[in-house]
Amino acid sequence: MFGAVAIIGLGLLGGSTGLAVQEYLPGVHTTGYDADPATRERARARGLVAQVCETAAEAVAGADLVVFCVPVGAMGAAAREVAGHLKPGVLVSDVGSSKQTVLSSLSEALPGVAIIPAHPVAGTENSGPDAGFASLFGRRWCIVTPPDDANPILLTKLVQFWEGLGAHVELMNPQHHDLVLAVTSHVPHLIAYTIVGTASDLEEVTQSEVIKYSAGGFRDFTRIAASDPTMWRDVFLSNRDAVLEILQRFTEDLTALQRSIRNGEGDRLFDHFTRTRAIRRSIIEQGQDDARPDFGRSDHNGQG
Amino acid sequence: MFGAVAIIGLGLLGGSTGLAVQEYLPGVHTTGYDADPATRERARARGLVAQVCETAAEAVAGADLVVFCVPVGAMGAAAREVAGHLKPGVLVSDVGSSKQTVLSSLSEALPGVAIIPAHPVAGTENSGPDAGFASLFGRRWCIVTPPDDANPILLTKLVQFWEGLGAHVELMNPQHHDLVLAVTSHVPHLIAYTIVGTASDLEEVTQSEVIKYSAGGFRDFTRIAASDPTMWRDVFLSNRDAVLEILQRFTEDLTALQRSIRNGEGDRLFDHFTRTRAIRRSIIEQGQDDARPDFGRSDHNGQG
Repeated sequence: MFGAVAIIGLGLLGGSTGLAVQEYLPGVHTTGYDADPATRERARARGLVAQVCETAAEAVAGADLVVFCVPVGAMGAAAREVAGHLKPGVLVSDVGSSKQTVLSSLSEALPGVAIIPAHPVAGTENSGPDAGFASLFGRRWCIVTPPDDANPILLTKLVQFWEGLGAHVELMNPQHHDLVLAVTSHVPHLIAYTIVGTASDLEEVTQSEVIKYSAGGFRDFTRIAASDPTMWRDVFLSNRDAVLEILQRFTEDLTALQRSIRNGEGDRLFDHFTRTRAIRRSIIEQGQDDARPDFGRSDHNGQG
Repeated sequence: MFGAVAIIGLGLLGGSTGLAVQEYLPGVHTTGYDADPATRERARARGLVAQVCETAAEAVAGADLVVFCVPVGAMGAAAREVAGHLKPGVLVSDVGSSKQTVLSSLSEALPGVAIIPAHPVAGTENSGPDAGFASLFGRRWCIVTPPDDANPILLTKLVQFWEGLGAHVELMNPQHHDLVLAVTSHVPHLIAYTIVGTASDLEEVTQSEVIKYSAGGFRDFTRIAASDPTMWRDVFLSNRDAVLEILQRFTEDLTALQRSIRNGEGDRLFDHFTRTRAIRRSIIEQGQDDARPDFGRSDHNGQG
């Protein structure tokens, strides 16, 4: 196992990684850095890592594993800050939501350094240094995307690292990762951002009405449309091709359902809606979600 | 308050209404009917109403309030079954998700009868006689849509009925209701149904991958795409004009964001994503959702 881990970027993902290492891998030393002084201060107060450093170079100096937890568009710049300060034999990784562009940004900034990107598929609508918690990765998937020439020992250690934090690890090539995530995460986020914007622009319906009646379905979209704007801007720009490809198919499918509504084709609608139920059942069976009515929202909500 | 309530249709909404009346309005007698014999049997076993009848006519015979809890496309036929069997002075209402077509279907089937439609904005992904529970309406909104000539005493009693079940009641005209619900519920459902279908049709990404990595955003769509297909087919067909109007605006907005991604316009994406966060905060502040990371999903999920 790695003796010391440096975490660059101490928001939701970085903070959770630091807390998780300290809780589940107590023998591993943690250092961390964030470009924002206010975030470093909160990170110290919460103890997100054992040692919050004032420069990225200082944070990575003794690390066997460096994990970049910054928006994917900031990976290259963050990596350039540590170039020349890394320990020989170090492994550089990240937690970004797109993998092809991250691999090329990190490789360009750190020539000759071992790089194996990773993506823990976990998150919440909250962001920043106060949002993280140690159990974020527990029983969630972490996709590791080794380049073809990855060092097998470092790869094994990275897999064990994420398993140590409670994640299930899956290996995938970066290109396939980007397509899978475009459909399971990126396009759903874009759609949620869109409909929430559409709703708030309507002249005939007040914002207050939209909020009041959100339990009818809309609120499930607002949760994901509240995610960190910087992170998501970067995800869409860095995974552009896959996102546009899936969006195109989505739009075709939506147009077909729209036509069925216009033409009163009830059977087509019914068949489509029946098919989508099966996928939901599988997600619940495989422990990726909660089948209780309302996700247990009622627990702290009085009657309802 | 009404002395006796008849519930026609004993699925999620009808069953919950029956359970709620028995729990929160114990002086009110409940009868019920469902066209499906298997549902009647489960309704008896669970005690969804005090008396499950073998015909709709029998169920409504002594009722002061009749609540139709069938899919909106079945309202007219269900109402015709009870025509001529209603008590003088009865109020007929419903729980359907669209209001203009329901009002006209019920009025056509029951000329001369007092009709005030209503829509409790509450539900889960589950359906059928085993899905209901008494607290479903607690602290949720119920929109009552009285026609212009509604009897004010009956209207007051209906409002008090829903308040008695724990709901907050709001009055609205049927046309405005249909537009508000198109944006807060109907179009979100259609979009969720669409993207879940798109994902399951992809050749390059397996169904198993879609399910595994659904925590990235997709699973929030699958929940609403698992709702009752018959109910939703009817909603889209009965609220067609408002749904198509909102869909058109959504598509325009999505196209604009798609263009921003294609052209690498990061600032536009960032501005849009920042704006949508404010709406989410209001929803949490107003108690319409749970701000805990993951909705408290982690409560029974081990580490994560």
